[in-house]
Formats: sequence, C-alpha cells, structure tokens
Amino acid sequence: MSRDANTALARALVDEWARAGVAHAVVAPGSRSTPLALALAADGRIRLHVHLDERSAAFFALGTARATGRPAVVLCTSGTAAANFHPAVLEARHSRVPLLVCTADRPPELRDTGAGQTVDQLKLYGDAVRWFCEVGAPEDPGPGRGAAAGAAWRSVAARAVAEADGPPAGPVHLNLAFREPLVPTGEPLVDAPGRPDGRPWTVSLAPARRLPDAAVVDRVVELVRGARCGALVVGWGAAVDPVTVEALAAVTGWPVLADPLSGLRRGPGAISTYDALLRVPAFAAAHVPDLVVRVGAPLTSKAATAWLGPGVPQLLVDPDGDWLDPRHAACERVAADAGALLDGVAARLAAEGHDPGGGWIGSWVAAESAARAAIDALVDSWPEPFEGRIARDVVAALPDGATLLMASSMPVRDVESFAAPRDGLRITANRGVNGIDGFVSTVLGTAAGVASGAGAGGSPVVALVGDLCFLHDANGLLGARDRGLDATFVVVDNDGGGIFSFLPQADAAPEHFETLFGTPHGVDLGALARVHGVPVDEIEKAGDLVPALDAAIRAGGVRAVLVRTDRAANVTRHREVWSAVAAAIT
Amino acid sequence: MSRDANTALARALVDEWARAGVAHAVVAPGSRSTPLALALAADGRIRLHVHLDERSAAFFALGTARATGRPAVVLCTSGTAAANFHPAVLEARHSRVPLLVCTADRPPELRDTGAGQTVDQLKLYGDAVRWFCEVGAPEDPGPGRGAAAGAAWRSVAARAVAEADGPPAGPVHLNLAFREPLVPTGEPLVDAPGRPDGRPWTVSLAPARRLPDAAVVDRVVELVRGARCGALVVGWGAAVDPVTVEALAAVTGWPVLADPLSGLRRGPGAISTYDALLRVPAFAAAHVPDLVVRVGAPLTSKAATAWLGPGVPQLLVDPDGDWLDPRHAACERVAADAGALLDGVAARLAAEGHDPGGGWIGSWVAAESAARAAIDALVDSWPEPFEGRIARDVVAALPDGATLLMASSMPVRDVESFAAPRDGLRITANRGVNGIDGFVSTVLGTAAGVASGAGAGGSPVVALVGDLCFLHDANGLLGARDRGLDATFVVVDNDGGGIFSFLPQADAAPEHFETLFGTPHGVDLGALARVHGVPVDEIEKAGDLVPALDAAIRAGGVRAVLVRTDRAANVTRHREVWSAVAAAIT
Repeated sequence: MSRDANTALARALVDEWARAGVAHAVVAPGSRSTPLALALAADGRIRLHVHLDERSAAFFALGTARATGRPAVVLCTSGTAAANFHPAVLEARHSRVPLLVCTADRPPELRDTGAGQTVDQLKLYGDAVRWFCEVGAPEDPGPGRGAAAGAAWRSVAARAVAEADGPPAGPVHLNLAFREPLVPTGEPLVDAPGRPDGRPWTVSLAPARRLPDAAVVDRVVELVRGARCGALVVGWGAAVDPVTVEALAAVTGWPVLADPLSGLRRGPGAISTYDALLRVPAFAAAHVPDLVVRVGAPLTSKAATAWLGPGVPQLLVDPDGDWLDPRHAACERVAADAGALLDGVAARLAAEGHDPGGGWIGSWVAAESAARAAIDALVDSWPEPFEGRIARDVVAALPDGATLLMASSMPVRDVESFAAPRDGLRITANRGVNGIDGFVSTVLGTAAGVASGAGAGGSPVVALVGDLCFLHDANGLLGARDRGLDATFVVVDNDGGGIFSFLPQADAAPEHFETLFGTPHGVDLGALARVHGVPVDEIEKAGDLVPALDAAIRAGGVRAVLVRTDRAANVTRHREVWSAVAAAIT
Repeated sequence: MSRDANTALARALVDEWARAGVAHAVVAPGSRSTPLALALAADGRIRLHVHLDERSAAFFALGTARATGRPAVVLCTSGTAAANFHPAVLEARHSRVPLLVCTADRPPELRDTGAGQTVDQLKLYGDAVRWFCEVGAPEDPGPGRGAAAGAAWRSVAARAVAEADGPPAGPVHLNLAFREPLVPTGEPLVDAPGRPDGRPWTVSLAPARRLPDAAVVDRVVELVRGARCGALVVGWGAAVDPVTVEALAAVTGWPVLADPLSGLRRGPGAISTYDALLRVPAFAAAHVPDLVVRVGAPLTSKAATAWLGPGVPQLLVDPDGDWLDPRHAACERVAADAGALLDGVAARLAAEGHDPGGGWIGSWVAAESAARAAIDALVDSWPEPFEGRIARDVVAALPDGATLLMASSMPVRDVESFAAPRDGLRITANRGVNGIDGFVSTVLGTAAGVASGAGAGGSPVVALVGDLCFLHDANGLLGARDRGLDATFVVVDNDGGGIFSFLPQADAAPEHFETLFGTPHGVDLGALARVHGVPVDEIEKAGDLVPALDAAIRAGGVRAVLVRTDRAANVTRHREVWSAVAAAIT
C-alpha cells in the first residue's frame, strides 16, 4: 500500500501556513480540492470560511488579508472556478494585498484530455501574481523516504507566504494537482515533519525597508527648502505615520491634500475640500504649487488631477518603486520608504530653522475653512438624503477604531470630496484596480479580519456602497447571517450608475444613456438583502442616517441601512455645492 | 481639429460584424468602452443586451452564440471587468463556441501608471482564446488619409469573426484602447468605408471539413467489419447526423450509447440506461466490446467510463483533432469529420452485405427494455419528487423544437441516467469545462439566440438546474423580466451540493461534510427569483411537475418551477433504482 501523499502534502501546507501566522482561509466547495479543504477544516489555527461563489470567496480572502496584514488562503476546485478568482487576484496585485491563491488541478496525465473541469491552469493569472508555483501531484516517494518530499512541500508553503508578503505584498498562485483518491486513504501519511520547535520551515525575517541614503535626503531637502509654495499630496498606500506628515507640513508651511484612503487627512494643514476648491479656476490658478511631494497613489479628484499636470514640479515617492503617475508629471522620483525619507527631511529643515512664512498655508487654510462652512451649511439645509452629505456624515459618525470601506465610483469620490479631517478611522477601498466587483465580500472579509484582531469588540466595520456595486456582488451575502460577523452596509440606492451622470456620456448620447450608462435595474435591494437574512433599515430623511447607522452598529451582525436617492437630483446638488464653495472663496 | 477616430473605429467594427451575420452583443456598463457601446447601440442589425455583471454578460453572450451558431460580441470596460469574462472565455474555448470578447483599455501611455481601472490586459486569457489582437488606440491618420486605417479596422473585424468561427470555433480577444474623449466629438469621422456591395471586408468561405481519405475509410471499415461486439459511443460535440448513426448501428448491429448532449440518443439501437446497466458487474463484464467507435466528448457516467478502460479497443474520432480521451484508451484516432467517416463506413458495409447477427444487439436491447421498465415502474411509484424522475419527465414532456439546458453536477448526470430516447429536442450544457458558473445567463442568452432564429415561436427554452448552480449566477436574473425572453427554469432545490453525497467525501469526513461539501445555504430561491421579477411555481408532488412546466412554457416570459428535494433521500432513491435495474436484468 502507498502512503497517503495527498493528505500529507495538504497538512504540511496548512501547518506551515499556521506557523507563519496565516489566520484565515476561504474555501469554495469542490471535489478536486478535497485534500487541502479537509486539512484546512481540521486545523484549528486557521479560521475557515466557506463560500459558494469563487469570485466572492477570493474577495472575502482579500478583505481578511488587508485587514490583518497577513496572507489569506483562498482555495477552489479546478476549471472555471479558478478563473473566478481572477478579478480579486488583480485587485490584490495592484493594492498590494498578500493572498495565497490555491487552485486544485487534475494531475498532468488528465489535462487536455477531455477530463471534466480541466483547463490549462499554468500561469492562469499571467503576470498578475508575484509568484506562480506548479507544486506537482504528491506521490509516496517510497519506503523509508519522505523527508525530502516533506521538505519540498514545507519550503513551498513558507516561500509562498514570503512571496505574498513582499515587499511589495501581492498574490501568489499555487497550482495543486491531486490524483484520486482525494479523501484520506487511511494509510499512514508520507512523512513531512515540520521544524521541531514549531517555527516555520523558513522564517522570512522582516524584509528590509528601502531607506534613502544621505545623498537622497540632501537632494529632497534642497528641493523642499527652495519651494515656498509646495504641497504634500498623499493617496492610498502612502504608509506614512501621520506624525511625520504633520511635522513636515508644519516645518514647510505646505498644505496637505490627502485622499481619505491615505489615513492622513488630519492635522492643521489638512485641506479636505480640495476637490471643490480646485474646481474654481481662479483658486486653482492662484494656487499652483512650485513643488509637489507625492506619496502613494494619485488622488481620485479630477479637478486635483487636472491641476497637477506636468507643468507642476513633482517628486514621486513610492516604497516599492511603483510608478503611479498617470499624468506623467514626476520630474524626480524616489523609490524609498516614504516615512523615513520625510522624517529625515522634516528633521533637517527643523534643525536648520527653516521658516516657511505663513502666507501660502494661510491662504489654503482660509479657503478650507470657508469651503467647509459653505458645504456644511448647504448640505445641512437639505432635508432629503444627499449623497455627499451621506459620505460626510458616515465618516464623521463612526467611532474611533472603526473601519470604513468605500465602494468604487461615487462613494470613494464623495468621501474624498466631503469628508472632514479626522483621525481614528481606517478607511479602505478596492483602489488597486477600482472595480466594483467583489465589494460585499471584501467588506465581510474585512469584518472577519478585524474580528480576529486584538480589541475587535470596539471596531465596527461599515461600508458605503452604491446599488450597482452592491448588486454586482450580491452573492457576497450568501451565508452572511451565519458567519458570526459584524458589518453594516450603508447602501445608497439611486437605481443605476450615478457616476455616469457626471461624465460626458450624460450629454453625448441621450437616446442611449439610460440603456448603456444609467442602467436602472429596479431591484428592491431591501428585499434582496432580506432574502439573505440581512436586516434592512430603510431611511428617508437625511437626518435619520446617523441614528440608523449607530443603531445598526450597536445591534451587531450583518445589516444594511438603505437610502434611496435620485441620480439627476444628485448631480444638481453636487453642482450647487461647487457653486457655493466658489461663492464662499471669491 | 482631428477627425473622430474612436467613433470611426467602433462603427467600422460593428458594421463589419453585422455584415458577417453577428446578431447579438452583450455590453456591461462602463466608461472606457463608450465608443464601441454607442456604436453597438446605434446599429439596428445587432441586438443589444446590457448586463451589469460582466461574468453573467459573457455567459449570456455564450448562450446566444451557441444557440445561433454565430459569434456574439461581449464588451466591457477595462480592469477587473475584463477578468470577469475569464470563466466564459474558458467555457467557450472548450465547448467550441464562437465569441468576440472585446475589452476596452487605456491607451499605452496610461498603462502601469496608476491610472484607474487599469491592468495588463495583453493576452489576459492566455492560450484560452483562438486569437488575441491588440487593436491599438485609433488615431486620425491625417488629412486626406484614412482608407488604410479603415481597411485595417475592417480587416480586424472580419478576421475576428473568422477566427472565432474556426474550425474549431472559440473565443477571440480584441483589446481596444481608446483615448479621451470617449464620446463622439462632433468632428467628421475618420473615413473607413466598407465594401460597397454590403459584403464583409473579407468573406471567409465556409471552411473545408476534414474529410477522411479512402485509406482511412478502408482502415475503419476493416476494424468495424471485424468487430462482432462493437459499440458506438457518442458524447457532446459529436456533430453527426442521426441518420448516419442509425444507419451505422443498423448495419453493424452495435448498440449506441449516446449522451443526451450528443443529440443522438434515438433510434432502435439506442441504449439509454447504460449508466444503470453498467453498474451491474455481471452485465458490464458480459458486455465488454471488442471495438468502440467514440465520437465527441466522453460520456459523463462513471460506470460507463470505468467500463471503457484501455483494455477495450477504441477508435477516437474528432473533427477538430482534439484528444478527448481521459482514460488514455484510444488505440486508433482519426481527426476527420465524423459524419463523413461514418457515412462512408456504413455505406461500404451495407454494400458488402455485412451481416452482424442479432445476438449482441439483442442482448443490449433486451437489457435496455428491462431496465427502462424497471426504472419507470419504480420512479412512477414514488409520490414525492425524485431528481431522476424530474430529469426523465422534463426530457419527455418538452415539445418538439424545444431547447433543454442542463446544469453541471447532478442535472447533467440525471438526464444521462434517466432520459428515454427521443428526438426533436436540442439538449445543451456548459460541458466544455463543466462549471456551474454562469448558468442562468447561459440559459437566457440561449433564449435570446433561439428567439432570433426562424420559427422561434414554437421553440421553448427550458433549463434543469440545481440550487447551487442557480444561486452561483443569481445575478443572471438581473433584468431578466425586461429582456423580452421566454425561458423556464426547473430548479431542483436540495439546499446544497447534491453530487457530493454520491462521492467518497460523503463517508470520509463526516464531521466536515456539510461545511465543505453539503454546503446548505438556506436561501429561499423562490423569494430570490421573485425579487428579480421572476414568477415562481413551487410544486410538491412528482406528478405536478409536468403540468407546471407546461403552464410556465405557455405563459411565456422568464419563469421558474421550484421543486424541493432532500439530498440524503435522493442518494437512497438512486440506489434503489440501480438495485431494481440489477434485479430486472439478472
């Protein structure tokens, strides 16, 4: 009798992953994946989530991984199941989230032979993964042997974690061929012992950060020192301590234009109304910086992006050496840890007694103050729910320690445009590729990840999402009520694609607009959520949102607060805001 | 001012596709894809379907293409949207369905720069497509020029159709980069005239079939003549005229073991109960053929597959030269049009006065008759719905001209095991890769395709689907009530993955079985369908199914007939059937 190699490999992988701190695994049902699915289910150290829809499963895993910072496992059977992981693999790649993507496969002799559920899974995700490994069908290497096979298996598991951790973090793909029988045979396992001390097979020490050398700091100090009218622009992925940003802002007298996703929209220099301000041509023209230090991804605001063209000198900082510069505006670039670089620069300037003067930042802060007052006064005067106010109020209402996820399209833009500065929140989104797919699952995975962390009790997870995004991943709600998770979805339902009403498509082809872009669906989202056992609170007045949100958070479980809005009125209201801001600052 | 190249390219593509007979296009909403979406919407010759979920959109397109035999267009915006097409691209590849997969993209200068919704879409689907073309961002080639650009665009469009048509048919991928502005500029279009006579730019004449030469026919005749106890085994994709199969069966005295998907389960030699018969060891051992001619894909039945091991001489025929032989059993192989080959062989044997004798086929036909009687008597005695009877009754009840789609997992197996021979039906399934994903959309796309054909009025489209498959593509129901389609879903709801109860997983790990494999979801599928405006008739007695199905077909529109069953009882009932057949033939 052969020893059981499938089970031995599967258990070795799971044991290594648990040793390396992997805490969550999401499994989509299937047969070929049975050895690894059973090993995951049997291991008490990794929390198992089962999801029927592989697309949702992968985004759920992404959510857990982003929330915990540790790679999550996602496993499916062979064939099209594996292709359903593709969207989340791309998002993980571009938003630098560690993911262990495991696809079961037929062994080589059954590929391309008409065997069921079999496609070519080698490099299925192309260059989107940080590492691909065809693990090979496990076999009993023969009596008295096994240690070498076990070492290979454990090494693969440890290496997969390291490759996913990066830097940069990202998805890795293990293609796992299993021969039948797929269930444990009852024979002894091929021997694959781990390190006796419980450590991973290979401990990957914390990877070295790219620290800027003295010459680089010198050069950036020289640039910053010479800029009287600079600006610090930070997007998602900035990964800089707020203290660093505030110190640099203080010593340079620069405004901080921070996407809420950066976690850096806070402190006295924070300009939270830049989208509305920069829509005012006179303001934008009068506030062209002589240097921009950009950290992380670009801002989302079109007004800000237009303002930061190639004519504005820009220094681009990315710790992983990515080149996130769609305007082709960077004239200098540093691939280095932004925190270390900016800390060094701020310290040098402070030591020099650098005096920025107060005119430049004073003008920004005055504009921010006027714009904020104008926005607040106007949106608070509207009794009906307005999407900008919803975004502002959700951000303001959440307790410290909460996590807010924003859907792509309008929520991410409304939060950018309307959220006032604050700290204490973690704000995230699928901004690697900005898809609307997989959002519900990303939120629930985030809730699972947050719940597995320390002090999770006071850490609500709240999502701000439009109707199309919610519908796209309605399957994310499968089983939601039974997962023991707490998450509240604020669903803004304008029955279609609200963002298109802001784009040229709205005017260019009126006879096709609703068909191709507006796309009203007519689905009662409340009824849909209730089919999945998700309680829904439907509110009608703007002032009812925060109490409903508070109540949902307090009640716990997976819940939705549904707010209906009107797409056309929403555009009008946004324009009224922009007009009010223009009036307030001129 | 530049002339409008985006619109010109888009209209040239659409015009060429319409000239080539493309009749359906499915568009998922997005911005970057606007030029082509508008061109499709504006063209009255191609029917436009809009679907929020790209995964569903692609399967819908696959359904239209399979039903019409003509390539269908599916279009999405850039980023993860394109990855959502991947499952349907794989199914189209393996089930040889022509598909024009169009992904919008940022132009090269915005790729890998942090621009929104941008991933590397070059060869996104790897080897799964028959042809990939990076079309290139269209530009105005300058005053007085344009004909060359227009010729290139039209040639790409015509070639895409030809590559999708094959043979073998399959998906092609056009990656379409568009620069802003994405809406028509109002400037004149770059000139891209089509052929003046309304013909496609390049007419692809019907591709030559691979006709077997005389030596090949001689060899097959020699093999068949020498086999007194042969069998004809036909799976999906056989593409042989039933008359040919009946003629060959008559002259050889061979039984025909035909998967219903082949369209060839008919005629006096048809053995429809082979799955139950071959589960009887004595029968299987006594009926090992001395030659099997296999056309198309393998049978699904595990009993039949086990019986057709490498010890049984087998001749494999595939028109496209695919090698669908997971048992590695073929000892001879012909890449040739199966109809022409088998016609030639049957004619030669008939001319020779070949006399097969009656013992071999007589034994098969007697067994079929006994098994069929035993199955019918038993399942008709059960008042509660039994999944095998549901499959049998649906196949029997449908009117001539109907199309039946079966979901993967149990429906395809139950139809194989229980459907009696009949003609007049078209039976299909996503059997290229056998995924459960995209099924609802495939059905509705099929309904659209059937409706666009001649004589569609009397051609109902009916689906037999389990609860997990229905749930997986519940998004396929988005907008279903408003598409003007007629389709009836017979949903067999056993609250989980029924097939696993038949697999070793059911006994191997009872403590994890329901979590990993049974996966009960508890969703009220009737309520879910009604959320999407799909009326549901829930039946409780076995005898109520056919009247409910008839009523749904007569009523028209998209409807569901929901039948609840029990997974454990279903296994027991299947085993009772197998026992009854064993008793009947021994």
